Amino acid sequence: MSVRKPTVLLLVPVYRVGEWTAAMAEAGLDAFVHGRDSYAPESIDYVLSFRPPPGLLKSLPKLKVIFSLGAGVDGFLADPEFPKHVPLVRFVDESLSTEMAQYVLLHILLVHRSQRALDDAQKESRWAQTMLPRRTQDTRVGILGLGEIGTVSARLLVELGFSVSGWSRTRKNVQGIENFSGAAALEAFLAQCDFLVCLLPLTPDTRGILNAKTFAMLPKGAYVINAARGGHVVEADVIPAIEAGQLAGATLDVFETEPLPSSSPLWRHPKVTVTPHIAAISELGPSVKMVVEGIRRHQRGEPLINVVDIARGY
Amino acid sequence: MSVRKPTVLLLVPVYRVGEWTAAMAEAGLDAFVHGRDSYAPESIDYVLSFRPPPGLLKSLPKLKVIFSLGAGVDGFLADPEFPKHVPLVRFVDESLSTEMAQYVLLHILLVHRSQRALDDAQKESRWAQTMLPRRTQDTRVGILGLGEIGTVSARLLVELGFSVSGWSRTRKNVQGIENFSGAAALEAFLAQCDFLVCLLPLTPDTRGILNAKTFAMLPKGAYVINAARGGHVVEADVIPAIEAGQLAGATLDVFETEPLPSSSPLWRHPKVTVTPHIAAISELGPSVKMVVEGIRRHQRGEPLINVVDIARGY
Repeated sequence: MSVRKPTVLLLVPVYRVGEWTAAMAEAGLDAFVHGRDSYAPESIDYVLSFRPPPGLLKSLPKLKVIFSLGAGVDGFLADPEFPKHVPLVRFVDESLSTEMAQYVLLHILLVHRSQRALDDAQKESRWAQTMLPRRTQDTRVGILGLGEIGTVSARLLVELGFSVSGWSRTRKNVQGIENFSGAAALEAFLAQCDFLVCLLPLTPDTRGILNAKTFAMLPKGAYVINAARGGHVVEADVIPAIEAGQLAGATLDVFETEPLPSSSPLWRHPKVTVTPHIAAISELGPSVKMVVEGIRRHQRGEPLINVVDIARGY
Repeated sequence: MSVRKPTVLLLVPVYRVGEWTAAMAEAGLDAFVHGRDSYAPESIDYVLSFRPPPGLLKSLPKLKVIFSLGAGVDGFLADPEFPKHVPLVRFVDESLSTEMAQYVLLHILLVHRSQRALDDAQKESRWAQTMLPRRTQDTRVGILGLGEIGTVSARLLVELGFSVSGWSRTRKNVQGIENFSGAAALEAFLAQCDFLVCLLPLTPDTRGILNAKTFAMLPKGAYVINAARGGHVVEADVIPAIEAGQLAGATLDVFETEPLPSSSPLWRHPKVTVTPHIAAISELGPSVKMVVEGIRRHQRGEPLINVVDIARGY
């Protein structure tokens, strides 16, 4: 008697469908591609997704484990019919953390070292030698969110000579930085951030945390970088804060609506850098490993790793 | 009887004359600014400079110690009349090393993460989400020169997930990277560099080390970054190597003639980033400390620190 292969429903970017189906076949799994293949809902054991269409997960009666392509799982929890009894495994990986840290470092250094102004000078063949606008040791970088990604970023920024602090909901003790925690400490934290980098999970508590009111708590001329989720930023508050001189500028990788509509004024503001949600385009290898090992563990009845606390939201 | 104050002749950038003269006065030293103050050559005890006019140092008969504003001292050794019997102290400082490392990281990440293409897409309000052209772990960065600056840069690049190697004249053992050394190993080193970063001292052996022949030893499409000295690069070879597709591009902070003449085609090539020798604009504090402490040591007859080996050139 042949054993039925475990089945996986894939909701992955179009440009990665080929790689994913090949990897699943190699692992001895039956894969269906959502929107391309037809399948019986009751035949699906596992799902891999980033932001499934609302209601889809509930329609799969035999679903055993849900795997998130991203570190953040707000795309799942936004589904009012999300099946909370099914374990949700999020993607945690060192390569994802270092890629995110690359993004944070690149965009802080672009501003800190006035590289945009140097690019403009080059266009005019102009030798614009000047000092850094602010010494590195006097430049205070605040990291909102001290999970894996925030911690790696903070540590690298310390090594690059910056003065680094971090804020987290619950107390963390990252070495070499000043640790703030809890809602009551948010204002004191923000008051000492020349750069504010958002790497929080998106939860009801953190939605809209970057807004006119919190921008006003930053030192005048602070710079904001959001590499977490679009929902963290009240987008309509960004350009007014820049125009008022409260913010020197902003670098945004994520948006309330993605792709960012071409009508958004963020695209065209000279002090806003827009990137298309590329802070971490996860490598396939570690994601495949998460799914294959997670399914193996589940099939053997072993405990799953990196299961999300649904109530907490991360 | 009053003791004569030690005298220092300053050859510093115009925009820093005020700070330097104030710092010297505070330290109880008599400072003269070259080209502004008149002074008796035999009254000068110490000199601080980066690239003194040839012959000037020889004309100071009582000169006791020469201090270099930069980590590299080729600007002194280029003077055929350099007084080799006078100790030459070079600037070695952690903040200089981290600033140089910032430059290296910024410019590698700009290329590695296709940020220039994303900037272009932003100008068109275009959401250009794509994968990294090359995975970080498969991206091989080679550091030419494993002194303080090269070592710090290498370590940070390892933490950012890159595959790092280094080359030095004499054997170094930097942990976490592949160490190449000696002229015989140069070709094998170059053959495995997707990014080549020059952080060498400029000596007769390293002058012109980046040229058509060594570019041809790199993998096709390699990217070159020079943050050391203009003399390391045969400038006329850069654009032909790019046009031939051998180099993907180059980021140059230093040039044979500085400021880079506006007639140089490097300014206008779309695959060349020109920066105006700003990889490390040293902070004043540590330089002042070097001079003040160095003079104090000399006055007390204590050994000087970071004295250059003139024969070796660094």
